[in-house]
Amino acid sequence: MPELDKYRLFPTEPSVRSLSAEIYSTVKDLPIVSPHGHTDPRWYAENAAFPDPAQLFVTPDHYVFRMLFSQGVSLDALGVPHADGTRVETDGRKIWRLFAENFHLFRGTPSRMWLDHSFREVFGLTGRFGPDTADAFYDHISDCLAKPEFRPRALFDRFGIETIATTESPLDDLRWHKMIRDSDWNGNVVTAYRPDPVVDPEFEGFAENIEKLGALAGTDATTWDGYLEAHRIRRAYFKEFGATSSDHGHATARTENLPRSEAVALFEKALKGTCTPEEADAFRGHMLTEMARMSLDDGLVLQIHPGSRRNHSAPMMELFGRDKGFDIPGRTDYVAALKPMLDAVGTEPNLTIILFTLDETTYARELAPLAGVYPALRLGPAWWFHDSAEGMRRFREMTTETAGFYNTVGFNDDTRAFCSIPARHDVARRVDSAYLATLVRTGRLAEDEAFEVAQDLAYRLVKQAYKL
Amino acid sequence: MPELDKYRLFPTEPSVRSLSAEIYSTVKDLPIVSPHGHTDPRWYAENAAFPDPAQLFVTPDHYVFRMLFSQGVSLDALGVPHADGTRVETDGRKIWRLFAENFHLFRGTPSRMWLDHSFREVFGLTGRFGPDTADAFYDHISDCLAKPEFRPRALFDRFGIETIATTESPLDDLRWHKMIRDSDWNGNVVTAYRPDPVVDPEFEGFAENIEKLGALAGTDATTWDGYLEAHRIRRAYFKEFGATSSDHGHATARTENLPRSEAVALFEKALKGTCTPEEADAFRGHMLTEMARMSLDDGLVLQIHPGSRRNHSAPMMELFGRDKGFDIPGRTDYVAALKPMLDAVGTEPNLTIILFTLDETTYARELAPLAGVYPALRLGPAWWFHDSAEGMRRFREMTTETAGFYNTVGFNDDTRAFCSIPARHDVARRVDSAYLATLVRTGRLAEDEAFEVAQDLAYRLVKQAYKL
Amino acid sequence: MPELDKYRLFPTEPSVRSLSAEIYSTVKDLPIVSPHGHTDPRWYAENAAFPDPAQLFVTPDHYVFRMLFSQGVSLDALGVPHADGTRVETDGRKIWRLFAENFHLFRGTPSRMWLDHSFREVFGLTGRFGPDTADAFYDHISDCLAKPEFRPRALFDRFGIETIATTESPLDDLRWHKMIRDSDWNGNVVTAYRPDPVVDPEFEGFAENIEKLGALAGTDATTWDGYLEAHRIRRAYFKEFGATSSDHGHATARTENLPRSEAVALFEKALKGTCTPEEADAFRGHMLTEMARMSLDDGLVLQIHPGSRRNHSAPMMELFGRDKGFDIPGRTDYVAALKPMLDAVGTEPNLTIILFTLDETTYARELAPLAGVYPALRLGPAWWFHDSAEGMRRFREMTTETAGFYNTVGFNDDTRAFCSIPARHDVARRVDSAYLATLVRTGRLAEDEAFEVAQDLAYRLVKQAYKL
Repeated sequence: MPELDKYRLFPTEPSVRSLSAEIYSTVKDLPIVSPHGHTDPRWYAENAAFPDPAQLFVTPDHYVFRMLFSQGVSLDALGVPHADGTRVETDGRKIWRLFAENFHLFRGTPSRMWLDHSFREVFGLTGRFGPDTADAFYDHISDCLAKPEFRPRALFDRFGIETIATTESPLDDLRWHKMIRDSDWNGNVVTAYRPDPVVDPEFEGFAENIEKLGALAGTDATTWDGYLEAHRIRRAYFKEFGATSSDHGHATARTENLPRSEAVALFEKALKGTCTPEEADAFRGHMLTEMARMSLDDGLVLQIHPGSRRNHSAPMMELFGRDKGFDIPGRTDYVAALKPMLDAVGTEPNLTIILFTLDETTYARELAPLAGVYPALRLGPAWWFHDSAEGMRRFREMTTETAGFYNTVGFNDDTRAFCSIPARHDVARRVDSAYLATLVRTGRLAEDEAFEVAQDLAYRLVKQAYKL
Repeated sequence: MPELDKYRLFPTEPSVRSLSAEIYSTVKDLPIVSPHGHTDPRWYAENAAFPDPAQLFVTPDHYVFRMLFSQGVSLDALGVPHADGTRVETDGRKIWRLFAENFHLFRGTPSRMWLDHSFREVFGLTGRFGPDTADAFYDHISDCLAKPEFRPRALFDRFGIETIATTESPLDDLRWHKMIRDSDWNGNVVTAYRPDPVVDPEFEGFAENIEKLGALAGTDATTWDGYLEAHRIRRAYFKEFGATSSDHGHATARTENLPRSEAVALFEKALKGTCTPEEADAFRGHMLTEMARMSLDDGLVLQIHPGSRRNHSAPMMELFGRDKGFDIPGRTDYVAALKPMLDAVGTEPNLTIILFTLDETTYARELAPLAGVYPALRLGPAWWFHDSAEGMRRFREMTTETAGFYNTVGFNDDTRAFCSIPARHDVARRVDSAYLATLVRTGRLAEDEAFEVAQDLAYRLVKQAYKL
Repeated sequence: MPELDKYRLFPTEPSVRSLSAEIYSTVKDLPIVSPHGHTDPRWYAENAAFPDPAQLFVTPDHYVFRMLFSQGVSLDALGVPHADGTRVETDGRKIWRLFAENFHLFRGTPSRMWLDHSFREVFGLTGRFGPDTADAFYDHISDCLAKPEFRPRALFDRFGIETIATTESPLDDLRWHKMIRDSDWNGNVVTAYRPDPVVDPEFEGFAENIEKLGALAGTDATTWDGYLEAHRIRRAYFKEFGATSSDHGHATARTENLPRSEAVALFEKALKGTCTPEEADAFRGHMLTEMARMSLDDGLVLQIHPGSRRNHSAPMMELFGRDKGFDIPGRTDYVAALKPMLDAVGTEPNLTIILFTLDETTYARELAPLAGVYPALRLGPAWWFHDSAEGMRRFREMTTETAGFYNTVGFNDDTRAFCSIPARHDVARRVDSAYLATLVRTGRLAEDEAFEVAQDLAYRLVKQAYKL
């Protein structure tokens, strides 16, 4: 598309297409609320210029470099840093040209849509990106990045972001969030509490992490009570920096609600590093229930993101470390896995637990039936590999009939790629508008209701669910 | 929809839409054959007026109250009875207003379609239901219910029901069915044989149930041979009241074909209440094969409905008991699970085993390939949470190419909500008409064939499969 | 369809339909490259006339006779041979009439599309097939089969087949391929290396097969090193007859990368026939990794086709033997199963491993994410029961967004039914054209790109992936 098609992602039948466009026109300019993501708070704190086009679009985006790698382009040639921080290729232009030569690989992918949208809408580039235009695009983007209006805060404001959440570990001192808070800029950047390093006995340096947690909290976290207290203290600290949620990304959805004695015993083994894999899994599962109980007190929304088998390739993990595109989804079961936690807190109307999945087979079979009855449960949007036109459509088609719209929580961009944020929210608003228009034109929803639901899905539900 | 859209659920492209409407027009008024459901035979026996709108539409319909509960409305406020039979809220109008205030929660759900259809078609109400119209709707429906033409038998006739099946336990004396048979009304209400209380060693009071079974059958059911004989006797008794099928709702699709000695041993343990969960599961699985063997003799159609994890919430089960919307589907495997039974009886052309699923992932992968080769197997329609426009579409798209149309058995409403019966059959007829029209317009089926298949799906196949 | 609809399988909305037709018109006449299938090389070698219509269309096609069997037609009446080779019904016309009487069973199935296409395009028959036309069709096809232009080689040329692969065991002497090579006909028929009889310890006569393998290779295959060497020698021999791939059809996707000592120990047990099922499975899994290592040396493409539970019915297997329509797909997990092999060779850019599945739930969840990052992996097309309009559409919708188009390998017909080859490729080309047109009309792909991708999917990618 030299030009972005203004009707993109709308059904092709004219009467549905025109209604989709009408609905979309009422939500396209709503503020962006991004309650879950992985942008770097340092960007907003220091507000420094982004280094170069390759480091903006290629090197940090696992969607982009994994596809190039899948067709034989080495991560070294793309300047992706090794686990030890070294980078082989550092010439942004070389990386950019390699990206351009292989741009056809992205045909039909959401990355292609996000990139086209960013080139056009963020940098005002026209014409198609490819080998012939690589240098022109590189030069233009480089020039832009040097200008003040392309600094992180300026883009944040221009993107119409009302609130964005980053994700930090309890061991993070939140210095960048402090710096933002103490600055004269009033962009609303909040943190979220992601405790993997201190709730996963198999996490590198678990015992030291617990020491550090205690030090930060000013309590002895090596006892069970002190450990739970340290979580409460850090959660309270995160709330000072806007946190309204915690975030939990285990390999499975397992929860446990263990008797205190068993929990204590597992915690002590975890500190000694003597947990079996099964025991480590049980401990992680139990901590979800503990976190839910803390949420009942402090009101943080509990997000559960299970199902990714992280760092699937042993040699790549050794060479390049985490988050290099080798996290592969696996089958995830929720019904038995969530029962212990749901028996403990699932009927609490004042608790919000948001479930995500990478296993679409659970939408209609498990997640919608669960969220359609338990007051504490809500469904997160189509996530990660499913953050796409087809993925979002399947999400609505497979969850709405059983869970309705009001047990869902709007859209999350969940991204590290700052410039893709408007593009991703745009895709979500288009897909939902198309879905609603289809319901109207097939006699399943009245037109005025569709416009109201569109506002809910694009704006109201996310603020309500995340208490933003 | 203030008015029901006459084209609802049809594809939007005009040429497909018009053909869908043409096909639908030839099936919409066919008699309703409802071979599987849970309406109360007492309604037809006593033919008493339905008490009030809330007790007709809200309190008995788990689809309705589970959705309200999921958004924080308590079951007490909806008048849902506790396990001990007590009800907190008994004012129908209060319940009705609460329902109306939350009616937006049903947007995009099949419940919404069924309710709109019933309000309009059964009670002649126009305008949209909601807080503003709650009282008017309540008063109008109440007035109607007081009239003779809204008694169960009158509605049965008006709905064009040719045959309806209810579901009873072998321990049921079928008194209501006797009363119907002895009445001057000639509505065809038949029973179905659902033996859970006497084939599931984990069912409350299993041993006493077996005693009772023997007493009803006039045989000693505490011996293996007497037990099987008691089943045969009760099945014969059910057949006197029109039964043409048995119905089996286990948590899994497991079947077994055990040597007699093992079956006897498990039965004796079951009577003593000493079965392990694994042994109880094996016994249930073996009984499916025994039931299939009995079907070879007495001709009852065997229905297998696996996959629901019943009563998922322990606290809700304790407080409110069974069937309160907490039955959650789980992953269900059929291929290995059904093998013992299929090796025993699967190639019998005179046996009919109807398979249902709550796990759509098995449609194309397992169920269609199995039903597409085993003469004894047929596929039940999209069921329970999948008894919806999208669910039915997926069923056809994922089963037809491998199993064809003639290994399916038409539609089941499977409902407790009497007034929703015409609405549900209407949805099924519309979705099938749309599917057939799509096949024609995409060159996959000739037009005259589509009209013939539409008759088969709406009427002929269900009578044939269920021997009605 | 008395006439084949020229727009069949295209979306119905006119603007998408016309673009689909435009795209299709540029690929419909491209040569057929069939890199994976099960036609009999003897046909091309001897070029004898096909015996009769029933033996051409009914008796050898498990899609056809399994559907008839599922509705009570016995395999004996269809002339399907017993395991001992005997056939009950041998009168082709009787079989054909039985087929015609039940032709309505195929409504909505791909078999119906393939048959209609073959009747029309291969035999020039007009009018609809059925009981009334059975004899006329039979006579016409019989007359055709007697003519030289309906001999295998003539049809091969007429179908526009550029290359076709058959599948042989390492124990096959490839005599038919020799005969083809030595003939004056220049049709390109290549073999593929399918080692099940000599890599599966549970295969009938495994030990004798290993003896035979050694004899054919001229090495002692009863030692581990000799066994691997024998594979290398036979693979080289197959390459002389055009083989560019090996093919592996295990029940699961399990791979192993065992220490030499363990592999040797399993091999010795396998020879003694003392492997437990678990050990046999581990050995099969290890051999996939060994085959991948050999591929690194000799360049053969490794095809993995897991997930079929073969010969599901014990009584049918006993009476009729293998490949009688009783192979049922089962749930298949790839993520953990492939890890050992992928850790060993997954990042090799010069290796090609093509993954197929019968479990569509793995498309978006596992296969696309894996193929979208591992350079050695490519996705095979929608396969077997999913080689259909809906199946192919789901394949594109569920894999493209994460794996793109260029990690897929075009279409395989995988068939035993020679006359269905053009029909199957036509369906694939139509479905892909429709998918691409939809992407264009929904603003996801530029029009010129769609035409280019269409060429890739219909012709270029298959040649590239299979090195043809």
